[in-house]
Amino acid sequence: MAEHIVRSYDEDLQSLRRRISEMGGIAEKMLVDAVAALVRSDMPLAQSVISSDSRLDLLQREVEESAILTIARRQPLAVDLRETISAIRVSGDVERIGDLAKNIAKRALAIGGEFQAQKIVAGVQHMSDLVLGQLKDVLDAYAQQDTVRALDVWQRDGAIDALYTSLFRELLTYMMEDPRNISFCTHLLFCAKNIERIGDHTTNIAETVYYLVTGETLAIDRPKNDRSIDLTKAGA
Amino acid sequence: MAEHIVRSYDEDLQSLRRRISEMGGIAEKMLVDAVAALVRSDMPLAQSVISSDSRLDLLQREVEESAILTIARRQPLAVDLRETISAIRVSGDVERIGDLAKNIAKRALAIGGEFQAQKIVAGVQHMSDLVLGQLKDVLDAYAQQDTVRALDVWQRDGAIDALYTSLFRELLTYMMEDPRNISFCTHLLFCAKNIERIGDHTTNIAETVYYLVTGETLAIDRPKNDRSIDLTKAGA
Repeated sequence: MAEHIVRSYDEDLQSLRRRISEMGGIAEKMLVDAVAALVRSDMPLAQSVISSDSRLDLLQREVEESAILTIARRQPLAVDLRETISAIRVSGDVERIGDLAKNIAKRALAIGGEFQAQKIVAGVQHMSDLVLGQLKDVLDAYAQQDTVRALDVWQRDGAIDALYTSLFRELLTYMMEDPRNISFCTHLLFCAKNIERIGDHTTNIAETVYYLVTGETLAIDRPKNDRSIDLTKAGA
Repeated sequence: MAEHIVRSYDEDLQSLRRRISEMGGIAEKMLVDAVAALVRSDMPLAQSVISSDSRLDLLQREVEESAILTIARRQPLAVDLRETISAIRVSGDVERIGDLAKNIAKRALAIGGEFQAQKIVAGVQHMSDLVLGQLKDVLDAYAQQDTVRALDVWQRDGAIDALYTSLFRELLTYMMEDPRNISFCTHLLFCAKNIERIGDHTTNIAETVYYLVTGETLAIDRPKNDRSIDLTKAGA
Protein backbone atom coordinates (compact mmCIF):
# COMPACT_ATOMS: atom_id res chain seq x y z
CA MET A 1 0.00 0.00 0.00
CA ALA A 2 1.43 3.42 -0.97
CA GLU A 3 2.63 5.48 1.95
CA HIS A 4 0.30 8.40 1.32
CA ILE A 5 -2.67 6.03 1.56
CA VAL A 6 -1.42 4.70 4.89
CA ARG A 7 -0.87 8.17 6.26
CA SER A 8 -4.22 9.27 5.03
CA TYR A 9 -5.92 6.34 6.76
CA ASP A 10 -4.24 7.30 10.03
CA GLU A 11 -5.50 10.82 9.54
CA ASP A 12 -9.01 9.48 9.09
CA LEU A 13 -8.72 7.60 12.37
CA GLN A 14 -7.24 10.57 14.20
CA SER A 15 -10.05 12.77 13.01
CA LEU A 16 -12.59 10.21 14.27
CA ARG A 17 -10.85 10.02 17.65
CA ARG A 18 -10.71 13.80 17.93
CA ARG A 19 -14.43 14.15 17.25
CA ILE A 20 -15.33 11.42 19.74
CA SER A 21 -13.15 13.02 22.36
CA GLU A 22 -14.97 16.33 21.82
CA MET A 23 -18.30 14.48 22.04
CA GLY A 24 -17.27 12.88 25.34
CA GLY A 25 -16.37 16.26 26.83
CA ILE A 26 -19.72 17.74 25.80
CA ALA A 27 -21.70 14.78 27.17
CA GLU A 28 -19.89 14.86 30.53
CA LYS A 29 -20.56 18.58 30.88
CA MET A 30 -24.21 18.13 29.91
CA LEU A 31 -24.72 15.53 32.64
CA VAL A 32 -22.97 17.62 35.30
CA ASP A 33 -24.87 20.77 34.34
CA ALA A 34 -28.25 19.06 34.00
CA VAL A 35 -28.06 17.65 37.52
CA ALA A 36 -26.70 20.93 38.90
CA ALA A 37 -29.63 22.75 37.24
CA LEU A 38 -31.99 20.25 38.89
CA VAL A 39 -30.43 20.55 42.34
CA ARG A 40 -30.10 24.36 42.34
CA SER A 41 -33.22 25.13 40.23
CA ASP A 42 -30.90 26.96 37.84
CA MET A 43 -33.06 27.63 34.77
CA PRO A 44 -30.44 29.34 32.55
CA LEU A 45 -28.10 26.39 33.15
CA ALA A 46 -30.86 23.95 32.18
CA GLN A 47 -31.42 25.95 28.98
CA SER A 48 -27.74 25.84 28.12
CA VAL A 49 -27.72 22.04 28.49
CA ILE A 50 -30.64 21.82 26.08
CA SER A 51 -28.82 23.99 23.52
CA SER A 52 -25.58 21.98 23.67
CA ASP A 53 -27.33 18.87 22.38
CA SER A 54 -27.41 19.96 18.73
CA ARG A 55 -23.59 20.09 18.59
CA LEU A 56 -23.49 16.51 19.85
CA ASP A 57 -26.01 15.38 17.22
CA LEU A 58 -23.97 17.04 14.48
CA LEU A 59 -20.72 15.43 15.64
CA GLN A 60 -22.37 12.02 15.80
CA ARG A 61 -23.56 12.31 12.20
CA GLU A 62 -20.08 13.41 11.14
CA VAL A 63 -18.43 10.48 12.90
CA GLU A 64 -20.88 8.03 11.36
CA GLU A 65 -20.43 9.42 7.86
CA SER A 66 -16.63 9.67 8.06
CA ALA A 67 -16.29 6.19 9.52
CA ILE A 68 -18.39 4.65 6.78
CA LEU A 69 -16.54 6.56 4.06
CA THR A 70 -13.29 5.36 5.61
CA ILE A 71 -14.48 1.76 5.49
CA ALA A 72 -15.60 2.13 1.87
CA ARG A 73 -12.44 3.91 0.70
CA ARG A 74 -9.73 2.10 2.64
CA GLN A 75 -11.26 -1.34 3.13
CA PRO A 76 -9.58 -1.71 6.52
CA LEU A 77 -9.13 -5.18 7.99
CA ALA A 78 -8.98 -6.64 11.50
CA VAL A 79 -8.17 -4.08 14.18
CA ASP A 80 -8.45 -1.17 11.72
CA LEU A 81 -11.92 -2.24 10.70
CA ARG A 82 -12.84 -2.69 14.36
CA GLU A 83 -11.62 0.80 15.12
CA THR A 84 -13.94 2.39 12.56
CA ILE A 85 -16.88 0.24 13.68
CA SER A 86 -16.14 1.12 17.29
CA ALA A 87 -16.11 4.82 16.46
CA ILE A 88 -19.65 4.50 15.06
CA ARG A 89 -20.84 2.61 18.14
CA VAL A 90 -19.21 4.85 20.74
CA SER A 91 -20.43 8.04 19.06
CA GLY A 92 -23.95 6.56 19.06
CA ASP A 93 -23.78 5.86 22.80
CA VAL A 94 -22.35 9.28 23.63
CA GLU A 95 -25.06 10.96 21.56
CA ARG A 96 -27.74 9.06 23.54
CA ILE A 97 -26.09 10.09 26.79
CA GLY A 98 -26.47 13.70 25.64
CA ASP A 99 -30.15 13.10 24.89
CA LEU A 100 -30.70 11.67 28.35
CA ALA A 101 -28.91 14.62 29.98
CA LYS A 102 -31.08 16.95 27.91
CA ASN A 103 -34.18 15.17 29.23
CA ILE A 104 -33.01 15.79 32.79
CA ALA A 105 -32.49 19.48 31.97
CA LYS A 106 -36.04 19.67 30.57
CA ARG A 107 -37.41 18.23 33.78
CA ALA A 108 -35.33 20.70 35.81
CA LEU A 109 -37.09 23.45 33.86
CA ALA A 110 -40.50 21.86 34.42
CA ILE A 111 -39.97 21.43 38.16
CA GLY A 112 -38.83 25.04 38.34
CA GLY A 113 -39.74 26.68 41.62
CA GLU A 114 -41.89 23.76 42.79
CA PHE A 115 -41.43 22.27 46.26
CA GLN A 116 -38.25 20.21 46.41
CA ALA A 117 -37.26 17.61 48.95
CA GLN A 118 -33.52 18.30 49.17
CA LYS A 119 -32.83 14.87 50.61
CA ILE A 120 -34.33 13.19 47.55
CA VAL A 121 -32.60 15.51 45.12
CA ALA A 122 -29.36 14.67 46.91
CA GLY A 123 -29.99 11.01 46.07
CA VAL A 124 -30.24 11.90 42.39
CA GLN A 125 -27.02 13.92 42.69
CA HIS A 126 -25.22 11.01 44.31
CA MET A 127 -26.34 8.61 41.61
CA SER A 128 -25.27 11.08 38.94
CA ASP A 129 -21.80 11.48 40.51
CA LEU A 130 -21.35 7.72 40.37
CA VAL A 131 -22.41 7.55 36.72
CA LEU A 132 -20.22 10.52 35.82
CA GLY A 133 -17.21 8.67 37.26
CA GLN A 134 -18.11 5.67 35.09
CA LEU A 135 -18.46 7.88 32.03
CA LYS A 136 -15.07 9.55 32.52
CA ASP A 137 -13.41 6.18 33.13
CA VAL A 138 -14.91 4.50 30.09
CA LEU A 139 -14.04 7.42 27.79
CA ASP A 140 -10.45 7.22 29.06
CA ALA A 141 -10.49 3.46 28.57
CA TYR A 142 -11.63 4.04 24.98
CA ALA A 143 -8.98 6.70 24.29
CA GLN A 144 -6.25 4.45 25.71
CA GLN A 145 -7.70 1.17 24.47
CA ASP A 146 -7.49 -0.09 28.05
CA THR A 147 -9.55 -3.28 28.49
CA VAL A 148 -8.83 -3.63 32.21
CA ARG A 149 -10.36 -0.25 32.91
CA ALA A 150 -13.24 -0.96 30.54
CA LEU A 151 -14.02 -4.24 32.32
CA ASP A 152 -13.92 -2.43 35.64
CA VAL A 153 -16.58 0.03 34.43
CA TRP A 154 -18.60 -2.84 33.05
CA GLN A 155 -18.63 -4.61 36.39
CA ARG A 156 -19.35 -1.53 38.49
CA ASP A 157 -22.67 -0.81 36.75
CA GLY A 158 -24.41 -3.08 39.27
CA ALA A 159 -23.80 -0.46 41.99
CA ILE A 160 -25.66 2.16 39.94
CA ASP A 161 -28.59 -0.15 39.38
CA ALA A 162 -28.74 -0.88 43.11
CA LEU A 163 -28.71 2.84 43.90
CA TYR A 164 -31.47 3.43 41.36
CA THR A 165 -33.60 0.75 42.98
CA SER A 166 -33.20 2.31 46.41
CA LEU A 167 -33.95 5.82 45.10
CA PHE A 168 -36.99 4.49 43.28
CA ARG A 169 -38.32 2.99 46.50
CA GLU A 170 -37.72 6.23 48.39
CA LEU A 171 -39.54 8.26 45.73
CA LEU A 172 -42.56 5.95 45.84
CA THR A 173 -42.69 6.31 49.61
CA TYR A 174 -42.68 10.10 49.33
CA MET A 175 -45.49 9.98 46.80
CA MET A 176 -47.59 7.77 49.04
CA GLU A 177 -47.00 9.95 52.08
CA ASP A 178 -48.32 13.12 50.49
CA PRO A 179 -50.08 13.53 47.13
CA ARG A 180 -48.51 16.98 46.77
CA ASN A 181 -45.19 15.21 46.21
CA ILE A 182 -46.50 13.16 43.30
CA SER A 183 -45.82 15.47 40.39
CA PHE A 184 -42.36 16.49 41.64
CA CYS A 185 -41.40 12.90 42.45
CA THR A 186 -42.64 11.69 39.07
CA HIS A 187 -40.12 14.01 37.44
CA LEU A 188 -37.39 12.71 39.71
CA LEU A 189 -38.36 9.11 38.91
CA PHE A 190 -37.77 9.84 35.23
CA CYS A 191 -34.54 11.72 36.00
CA ALA A 192 -33.24 8.77 38.00
CA LYS A 193 -34.25 6.44 35.17
CA ASN A 194 -32.38 8.65 32.70
CA ILE A 195 -29.25 8.51 34.83
CA GLU A 196 -29.54 4.75 35.14
CA ARG A 197 -29.78 4.54 31.35
CA ILE A 198 -26.67 6.71 31.01
CA GLY A 199 -25.00 4.04 33.15
CA ASP A 200 -26.18 1.40 30.66
CA HIS A 201 -24.59 3.36 27.82
CA THR A 202 -21.27 3.50 29.69
CA THR A 203 -21.33 -0.30 29.87
CA ASN A 204 -22.09 -0.44 26.13
CA ILE A 205 -18.97 1.67 25.54
CA ALA A 206 -16.99 -0.66 27.82
CA GLU A 207 -18.15 -3.59 25.67
CA THR A 208 -17.07 -1.73 22.54
CA VAL A 209 -13.59 -1.08 24.00
CA TYR A 210 -13.27 -4.78 24.76
CA TYR A 211 -14.33 -5.69 21.22
CA LEU A 212 -12.01 -3.07 19.70
CA VAL A 213 -8.95 -4.39 21.48
CA THR A 214 -9.62 -8.13 21.53
CA GLY A 215 -11.97 -8.70 18.61
CA GLU A 216 -14.16 -10.68 21.01
CA THR A 217 -17.65 -9.93 22.27
CA LEU A 218 -18.33 -9.78 26.00
CA ALA A 219 -21.25 -11.90 27.15
CA ILE A 220 -24.40 -10.10 26.06
CA ASP A 221 -26.22 -10.57 29.37
CA ARG A 222 -24.60 -8.54 32.08
CA PRO A 223 -25.92 -9.32 35.57
CA LYS A 224 -28.36 -6.50 36.38
CA ASN A 225 -29.08 -5.22 39.85
CA ASP A 226 -32.16 -3.21 39.00
CA ARG A 227 -34.92 -4.55 41.25
CA SER A 228 -37.07 -1.41 40.94
CA ILE A 229 -39.61 -3.18 38.74
CA ASP A 230 -40.14 -6.01 41.22
CA LEU A 231 -40.08 -3.68 44.21
CA THR A 232 -43.24 -1.87 43.27
CA LYS A 233 -44.97 -5.21 43.06
CA ALA A 234 -44.95 -5.24 46.83
CA GLY A 235 -46.07 -1.60 46.79
CA ALA A 236 -42.80 -0.68 48.54
CA MET B 1 -17.42 -4.84 -12.53
CA ALA B 2 -17.56 -8.61 -13.16
CA GLU B 3 -21.05 -10.05 -13.15
CA HIS B 4 -20.46 -12.50 -10.33
CA ILE B 5 -19.44 -9.58 -8.08
CA VAL B 6 -22.61 -7.75 -8.99
CA ARG B 7 -24.75 -10.77 -8.27
CA SER B 8 -22.94 -11.41 -5.05
CA TYR B 9 -23.50 -7.83 -3.91
CA ASP B 10 -27.21 -8.18 -4.63
CA GLU B 11 -27.22 -11.34 -2.57
CA ASP B 12 -25.62 -9.42 0.30
CA LEU B 13 -28.37 -6.82 0.11
CA GLN B 14 -31.11 -9.42 -0.13
CA SER B 15 -29.79 -11.20 2.91
CA LEU B 16 -29.77 -7.89 4.85
CA ARG B 17 -33.35 -7.15 3.77
CA ARG B 18 -34.50 -10.63 4.73
CA ARG B 19 -33.01 -10.32 8.21
CA ILE B 20 -34.51 -6.88 8.75
CA SER B 21 -37.89 -8.13 7.62
CA GLU B 22 -37.67 -10.95 10.17
CA MET B 23 -36.65 -8.44 12.84
CA GLY B 24 -39.64 -6.23 12.01
CA GLY B 25 -42.03 -9.15 12.37
CA ILE B 26 -40.56 -10.11 15.75
CA ALA B 27 -40.68 -6.52 17.07
CA GLU B 28 -44.31 -6.05 15.99
CA LYS B 29 -45.32 -9.27 17.71
CA MET B 30 -43.40 -8.33 20.86
CA LEU B 31 -45.26 -5.02 21.12
CA VAL B 32 -48.68 -6.61 20.53
CA ASP B 33 -47.99 -9.41 23.03
CA ALA B 34 -46.45 -7.15 25.68
CA VAL B 35 -49.50 -4.89 25.75
CA ALA B 36 -51.87 -7.87 25.63
CA ALA B 37 -49.99 -9.38 28.59
CA LEU B 38 -50.39 -6.07 30.45
CA VAL B 39 -54.10 -5.72 29.68
CA ARG B 40 -55.04 -9.35 30.42
CA SER B 41 -52.45 -9.97 33.19
CA ASP B 42 -51.20 -12.87 31.08
CA MET B 43 -47.91 -13.87 32.74
CA PRO B 44 -46.84 -16.68 30.34
CA LEU B 45 -47.34 -14.28 27.42
CA ALA B 46 -45.18 -11.65 29.16
CA GLN B 47 -42.49 -14.30 29.66
CA SER B 48 -42.56 -15.26 26.00
CA VAL B 49 -42.06 -11.60 24.99
CA ILE B 50 -39.01 -11.43 27.23
CA SER B 51 -37.54 -14.58 25.67
CA SER B 52 -38.03 -13.37 22.08
CA ASP B 53 -35.70 -10.45 22.62
CA SER B 54 -32.48 -12.46 22.33
CA ARG B 55 -33.34 -13.48 18.75
CA LEU B 56 -33.75 -9.80 17.89
CA ASP B 57 -30.38 -8.93 19.46
CA LEU B 58 -28.69 -11.70 17.50
CA LEU B 59 -30.23 -10.60 14.20
CA GLN B 60 -29.19 -7.01 14.83
CA ARG B 61 -25.57 -8.02 15.37
CA GLU B 62 -25.68 -10.11 12.21
CA VAL B 63 -27.10 -7.23 10.17
CA GLU B 64 -24.49 -4.83 11.51
CA GLU B 65 -21.61 -7.22 10.84
CA SER B 66 -22.80 -8.23 7.37
CA ALA B 67 -23.48 -4.65 6.33
CA ILE B 68 -20.03 -3.52 7.38
CA LEU B 69 -18.35 -6.47 5.68
CA THR B 70 -20.35 -5.62 2.56
CA ILE B 71 -19.13 -2.03 2.67
CA ALA B 72 -15.53 -3.14 3.18
CA ARG B 73 -15.62 -5.83 0.45
CA ARG B 74 -17.71 -4.19 -2.25
CA GLN B 75 -17.02 -0.49 -1.67
CA PRO B 76 -20.55 0.42 -2.73
CA LEU B 77 -21.27 3.98 -3.86
CA ALA B 78 -24.28 6.29 -3.79
CA VAL B 79 -27.58 4.44 -3.34
CA ASP B 80 -25.85 1.10 -2.72
CA LEU B 81 -23.79 2.59 0.09
CA ARG B 82 -26.90 4.24 1.48
CA GLU B 83 -28.71 0.93 1.44
CA THR B 84 -26.09 -0.78 3.61
CA ILE B 85 -25.92 2.20 5.99
CA SER B 86 -29.71 2.23 6.20
CA ALA B 87 -29.76 -1.47 7.05
CA ILE B 88 -27.48 -0.77 10.04
CA ARG B 89 -29.67 2.12 11.21
CA VAL B 90 -33.03 0.38 10.77
CA SER B 91 -31.86 -2.79 12.49
CA GLY B 92 -30.66 -0.62 15.40
CA ASP B 93 -34.06 1.04 15.73
CA VAL B 94 -35.96 -2.25 15.49
CA GLU B 95 -33.72 -3.79 18.13
CA ARG B 96 -34.48 -0.87 20.49
CA ILE B 97 -38.19 -1.28 19.82
CA GLY B 98 -37.83 -4.88 20.97
CA ASP B 99 -36.05 -3.72 24.14
CA LEU B 100 -38.87 -1.30 24.89
CA ALA B 101 -41.52 -3.99 24.32
CA LYS B 102 -39.54 -6.27 26.65
CA ASN B 103 -39.62 -3.53 29.31
CA ILE B 104 -43.41 -3.39 29.02
CA ALA B 105 -43.58 -7.18 29.42
CA LYS B 106 -41.41 -6.97 32.55
CA ARG B 107 -43.77 -4.41 34.04
CA ALA B 108 -46.76 -6.60 33.14
CA LEU B 109 -45.09 -9.34 35.21
CA ALA B 110 -44.42 -6.95 38.08
CA ILE B 111 -47.99 -5.62 38.15
CA GLY B 112 -49.24 -9.21 38.11
CA GLY B 113 -52.44 -9.62 40.05
CA GLU B 114 -52.38 -6.09 41.48
CA PHE B 115 -55.45 -3.87 41.24
CA GLN B 116 -55.91 -2.58 37.68
CA ALA B 117 -57.98 0.35 36.51
CA GLN B 118 -59.25 -1.05 33.22
CA LYS B 119 -60.02 2.42 31.87
CA ILE B 120 -56.39 3.47 32.25
CA VAL B 121 -55.04 0.23 30.83
CA ALA B 122 -57.37 0.81 27.86
CA GLY B 123 -55.60 4.13 27.28
CA VAL B 124 -52.25 2.31 27.10
CA GLN B 125 -53.79 -0.20 24.68
CA HIS B 126 -55.12 2.59 22.47
CA MET B 127 -51.74 4.32 22.37
CA SER B 128 -50.07 1.03 21.55
CA ASP B 129 -52.49 0.33 18.68
CA LEU B 130 -51.64 3.69 17.17
CA VAL B 131 -47.89 3.06 17.47
CA LEU B 132 -48.26 -0.45 16.06
CA GLY B 133 -49.95 1.02 12.97
CA GLN B 134 -47.00 3.41 12.57
CA LEU B 135 -44.54 0.56 12.96
CA LYS B 136 -46.22 -1.61 10.31
CA ASP B 137 -46.45 1.34 7.92
CA VAL B 138 -42.84 2.39 8.32
CA LEU B 139 -41.55 -1.16 7.90
CA ASP B 140 -43.59 -1.43 4.68
CA ALA B 141 -42.27 1.96 3.58
CA TYR B 142 -38.73 0.66 4.16
CA ALA B 143 -39.34 -2.61 2.29
CA GLN B 144 -40.86 -0.71 -0.66
CA GLN B 145 -38.58 2.34 -0.44
CA ASP B 146 -41.73 4.47 -0.33
CA THR B 147 -40.92 8.03 0.83
CA VAL B 148 -44.53 9.23 0.70
CA ARG B 149 -45.57 6.61 3.21
CA ALA B 150 -42.47 7.26 5.31
CA LEU B 151 -43.21 11.00 5.45
CA ASP B 152 -46.76 10.21 6.46
CA VAL B 153 -45.51 8.16 9.44
CA TRP B 154 -43.06 10.91 10.31
CA GLN B 155 -45.80 13.51 10.46
CA ARG B 156 -48.29 11.38 12.37
CA ASP B 157 -45.99 10.94 15.38
CA GLY B 158 -47.45 14.15 16.85
CA ALA B 159 -50.73 12.32 17.48
CA ILE B 160 -48.93 9.71 19.60
CA ASP B 161 -47.15 12.38 21.63
CA ALA B 162 -50.48 14.13 22.23
CA LEU B 163 -52.06 10.86 23.39
CA TYR B 164 -49.09 10.20 25.69
CA THR B 165 -49.50 13.64 27.25
CA SER B 166 -53.17 13.05 27.94
CA LEU B 167 -52.54 9.57 29.38
CA PHE B 168 -49.76 10.97 31.56
CA ARG B 169 -52.14 13.59 32.98
CA GLU B 170 -54.79 10.94 33.64
CA LEU B 171 -52.29 8.70 35.45
CA LEU B 172 -51.13 11.56 37.68
CA THR B 173 -54.74 12.31 38.59
CA TYR B 174 -55.32 8.68 39.59
CA MET B 175 -52.21 8.71 41.74
CA MET B 176 -53.31 11.87 43.51
CA GLU B 177 -56.82 10.55 44.12
CA ASP B 178 -55.68 7.44 45.94
CA PRO B 179 -52.17 6.51 47.12
CA ARG B 180 -52.99 2.83 46.52
CA ASN B 181 -52.89 3.61 42.80
CA ILE B 182 -49.36 4.99 42.93
CA SER B 183 -47.30 1.88 42.40
CA PHE B 184 -49.57 0.50 39.67
CA CYS B 185 -49.76 3.87 37.91
CA THR B 186 -46.00 4.34 38.10
CA HIS B 187 -45.61 1.15 36.09
CA LEU B 188 -48.14 2.39 33.56
CA LEU B 189 -46.33 5.75 33.33
CA PHE B 190 -43.17 3.91 32.32
CA CYS B 191 -45.13 1.65 29.93
CA ALA B 192 -46.68 4.69 28.24
CA LYS B 193 -43.24 6.30 28.03
CA ASN B 194 -41.87 3.11 26.43
CA ILE B 195 -44.63 3.14 23.82
CA GLU B 196 -44.01 6.81 23.10
CA ARG B 197 -40.32 6.00 22.57
CA ILE B 198 -41.28 3.18 20.18
CA GLY B 199 -43.11 5.91 18.25
CA ASP B 200 -39.87 7.94 18.16
CA HIS B 201 -38.03 4.96 16.70
CA THR B 202 -40.66 4.62 13.96
CA THR B 203 -39.95 8.24 12.98
CA ASN B 204 -36.21 7.48 12.98
CA ILE B 205 -36.93 4.66 10.53
CA ALA B 206 -39.03 7.04 8.43
CA GLU B 207 -36.06 9.42 8.31
CA THR B 208 -33.79 6.57 7.24
CA VAL B 209 -36.17 5.60 4.41
CA TYR B 210 -36.13 9.21 3.20
CA TYR B 211 -32.33 9.29 3.32
CA LEU B 212 -32.07 5.91 1.59
CA VAL B 213 -34.21 6.97 -1.35
CA THR B 214 -33.24 10.63 -1.76
CA GLY B 215 -29.78 10.87 -0.21
CA GLU B 216 -31.07 13.88 1.74
CA THR B 217 -31.56 14.28 5.46
CA LEU B 218 -34.93 15.33 6.84
CA ALA B 219 -34.82 18.30 9.22
CA ILE B 220 -33.40 17.00 12.51
CA ASP B 221 -35.98 18.78 14.65
CA ARG B 222 -39.37 17.27 14.16
CA PRO B 223 -42.16 19.26 15.83
CA LYS B 224 -42.93 17.39 19.08
CA ASN B 225 -46.32 17.34 20.72
CA ASP B 226 -45.21 15.91 24.05
CA ARG B 227 -46.34 18.38 26.68
CA SER B 228 -46.22 15.85 29.53
CA ILE B 229 -43.13 17.45 31.05
CA ASP B 230 -44.71 20.91 31.21
CA LEU B 231 -48.06 19.56 32.32
CA THR B 232 -46.81 18.30 35.63
CA LYS B 233 -45.45 21.77 36.33
CA ALA B 234 -49.01 22.82 37.00
CA GLY B 235 -49.44 19.62 39.00
CA ALA B 236 -52.17 18.62 36.52
